[in-house]
Amino acid sequence: MNICQTNSKLVLRLSKKLLLLLILQFSFLISISGYLLSQENALDLTDFKNRAETIKNLGLSQEKAYEFLKILTSVGSRLTGSPEAARAVELMVRLMSDLGFDQVWKEPVQVNHWVRGKAEKGLVKSQKFGQRRINICALGNSIGTPSNGIEAGVVEVNTFDRLSELKETIEGKIVFFNVPMDRTIVEPFAAYGRAAQFRLRGASEAARYGARAVLIRSVTYRIDDYPHTGLMVYDEQYPKIPAAAISTSDAERLSRWLKDDPELRIFLKMHCQQLEPVISSNVIGQLTGTEKPEEIILVGGHLDSWDLSPGAHDDASGCVVAIEALRLIKESGLRPKRTIRAVLFMDEEFGGTGGRAYVRAEARQKEKHLVAIEQDHGGFVPIGLAIGGGERVLNKIKTIENILKPLGINWIRTGGGGVDIGPLVEQGVIPGSLIPDSQRYFDYHHSALDVPSAVHPRELEFQAIILAIVVYFLAQEGL
Amino acid sequence: MNICQTNSKLVLRLSKKLLLLLILQFSFLISISGYLLSQENALDLTDFKNRAETIKNLGLSQEKAYEFLKILTSVGSRLTGSPEAARAVELMVRLMSDLGFDQVWKEPVQVNHWVRGKAEKGLVKSQKFGQRRINICALGNSIGTPSNGIEAGVVEVNTFDRLSELKETIEGKIVFFNVPMDRTIVEPFAAYGRAAQFRLRGASEAARYGARAVLIRSVTYRIDDYPHTGLMVYDEQYPKIPAAAISTSDAERLSRWLKDDPELRIFLKMHCQQLEPVISSNVIGQLTGTEKPEEIILVGGHLDSWDLSPGAHDDASGCVVAIEALRLIKESGLRPKRTIRAVLFMDEEFGGTGGRAYVRAEARQKEKHLVAIEQDHGGFVPIGLAIGGGERVLNKIKTIENILKPLGINWIRTGGGGVDIGPLVEQGVIPGSLIPDSQRYFDYHHSALDVPSAVHPRELEFQAIILAIVVYFLAQEGL
Repeated sequence: MNICQTNSKLVLRLSKKLLLLLILQFSFLISISGYLLSQENALDLTDFKNRAETIKNLGLSQEKAYEFLKILTSVGSRLTGSPEAARAVELMVRLMSDLGFDQVWKEPVQVNHWVRGKAEKGLVKSQKFGQRRINICALGNSIGTPSNGIEAGVVEVNTFDRLSELKETIEGKIVFFNVPMDRTIVEPFAAYGRAAQFRLRGASEAARYGARAVLIRSVTYRIDDYPHTGLMVYDEQYPKIPAAAISTSDAERLSRWLKDDPELRIFLKMHCQQLEPVISSNVIGQLTGTEKPEEIILVGGHLDSWDLSPGAHDDASGCVVAIEALRLIKESGLRPKRTIRAVLFMDEEFGGTGGRAYVRAEARQKEKHLVAIEQDHGGFVPIGLAIGGGERVLNKIKTIENILKPLGINWIRTGGGGVDIGPLVEQGVIPGSLIPDSQRYFDYHHSALDVPSAVHPRELEFQAIILAIVVYFLAQEGL
Repeated sequence: MNICQTNSKLVLRLSKKLLLLLILQFSFLISISGYLLSQENALDLTDFKNRAETIKNLGLSQEKAYEFLKILTSVGSRLTGSPEAARAVELMVRLMSDLGFDQVWKEPVQVNHWVRGKAEKGLVKSQKFGQRRINICALGNSIGTPSNGIEAGVVEVNTFDRLSELKETIEGKIVFFNVPMDRTIVEPFAAYGRAAQFRLRGASEAARYGARAVLIRSVTYRIDDYPHTGLMVYDEQYPKIPAAAISTSDAERLSRWLKDDPELRIFLKMHCQQLEPVISSNVIGQLTGTEKPEEIILVGGHLDSWDLSPGAHDDASGCVVAIEALRLIKESGLRPKRTIRAVLFMDEEFGGTGGRAYVRAEARQKEKHLVAIEQDHGGFVPIGLAIGGGERVLNKIKTIENILKPLGINWIRTGGGGVDIGPLVEQGVIPGSLIPDSQRYFDYHHSALDVPSAVHPRELEFQAIILAIVVYFLAQEGL
């Protein structure tokens, strides 16, 4: 072994040491810079809390969501395809423009155009006790009766099984589905889901056995004189027959009358029909992100309503809290890093064509939606927040749990979703919903009672405030 | 050492061993029996859950609390000392008797008898814009004006400090306390507490500087034409002067008018006065405990109301949910081990004489109250449960947290209390309150708007159901 060898070995050893040192130093630098970067990006919770406080104070002192609700409901009911829905589109474009959102635009949606026509007529005719009027309304999508009406005997059922048992007796009759919402279910939407199936598919189930029409007990807990409409669908296998809702008061009476006189007959006249499809619009407004404008936090509701009322809860409330959330962020002087977008979807009630048109729109190609929050549970005081995306997202949102709790958000859970954001969720976008207390919701839902006075300005504003805080957090922090 | 000695030592040793064995055996038996006893007494949660389910189903399907509310409010307003309050006493005795409670009785309470007399008159008189009517109502306990009224210039203030600054200008004037409830405070009761101090002691604070009368902005978030009354008290150091509430709409207008014409004068005529005290009653009904009848779980509200409305929320709701809670337990076939008692206190609004009379009643000597639950926050959907007694009690109640949560009880916290149970709590009784969402409460509170239609049958019933489950749990488990 000569000196060179020794030297070269030494050099090798030194080189190895140096390399190791360099590697260590490098990884130290990486970890340090990573740490510094994460420090720079970490949410300053105290600062965020102050911003949330500004949003809350602005919202509660002004209660602008309710002002917007009055503007939107001023057009009257907004049935998909109707002139009123078209006016609502223009009104909301103007409102969001006047509020100074960064961008406001419309995107086309082709929608069905069903019309009720003249008010329906419903009569009970009995040999025993004469003639009595009943409060009915056509279900959305139903065909009308022949112009001289339908008159037939009645079969009352309270399950599809019972209908099937009685199938021999159905031919030529009007089937009366008298199924109350189950009051013992705490969560009204769960009870609604069960009872609404008779409204949705009762007509075809009855037509299958030869029924001439169906009457569906209105889906509400209350016993009153207001029929509640809603969507029905036909199974193409069976003949289309007229379908109407009957008020709960009259459903109770009709059931008693039928016990008294099983031979009584009902006369129905309904003028509803499908017209040609119409080109309508989704309405979109946004605060464009300063750093990642292509990443979108969406919050929205649906602009259409049923035709019996201005749909104050369903879903003017969802539209105006989305608008108000953006206004609160803007007026608080906050500039979101990512884009916060309010989408007022057209045509939730007749099948969600607006939600589908939204995802198909060309502009979506260059965008990445992180979260889509749909508000369509009424404008009541919010009690919880539901969000998809699993534990990771849940934990992220829980960063601001202590800011949301004092505002009445008792829980943050996995959930969220809705008809309008369904197509986005199918593409992997994380759904969310602010959940209000809904014990009163079905009193108003799809009936003439869903008017602005049924919405409380302060309860509604809490929705906008909490949405503003949540979407601003997501716009800053991403997911 | 002889054999005997040895033997006696042996006997001693054996005896010692035997003694030890006996002691060990005895303590084993004690611990075993203790274990067996505790097993026997341990709450069977599955069984309890089934009982709670029965209570819930019965309550939600019948909504009897609202029926009782209609009965109680049918007498009209129930001002302490009034004939209507006396009728309410008899009506509630009959209701609880008809419901088959084990014992129903009255206990005497001497109450003040303040009367409003003829409707008040309030006019604004301006040289600039003429005469305008304002909506006012006397505050409870106020003296009237002289029979020909009071007319004076007006000084508007929004703090007691401001009043003090302006003290040189107050002599001979009407002081107008124009202090809105702070909308930015999330919890309405907290905002109420701050704003109500002007109603409570504004008159004497103004009289101190020579004011002739005070007008207090009504304590509500809403801007409307309904004045809200409430108790005021006089500081005996200063002259008594008339005190009235002015509607929020008129408070806003008056403030504008004063800017326009600082010289405007107000004319007030109020006919209210104190009559002789009256003997009235607390009304009590109970399900007597089967094992420890002397141990009492109390739940109640106050039977009196202000005179401007039938006090549907304040506090007919508190009375009827207490009654309904007992009915639900009874009708579910449950026999509580300890006594569950509904107490409808007379005279919460005029100072809580009913609550004080209750603790002084002779029958209390033989009783031991474990918990007293007061419901006086309106008949809205319950969101949480507040209870005193510290961690131990909190943990005990949390045994049934998972039964209460699905019914909407988002939290169980330290708290509870109220005017009526105050004297019990002073004696060491643990207070409790079921806390409803109260965002709408002050819309109605102490005004003509507090009518049955402002209460929702299902929301109210949830209170009764949860109270029934909680008081039944306490009656079975003790504290």
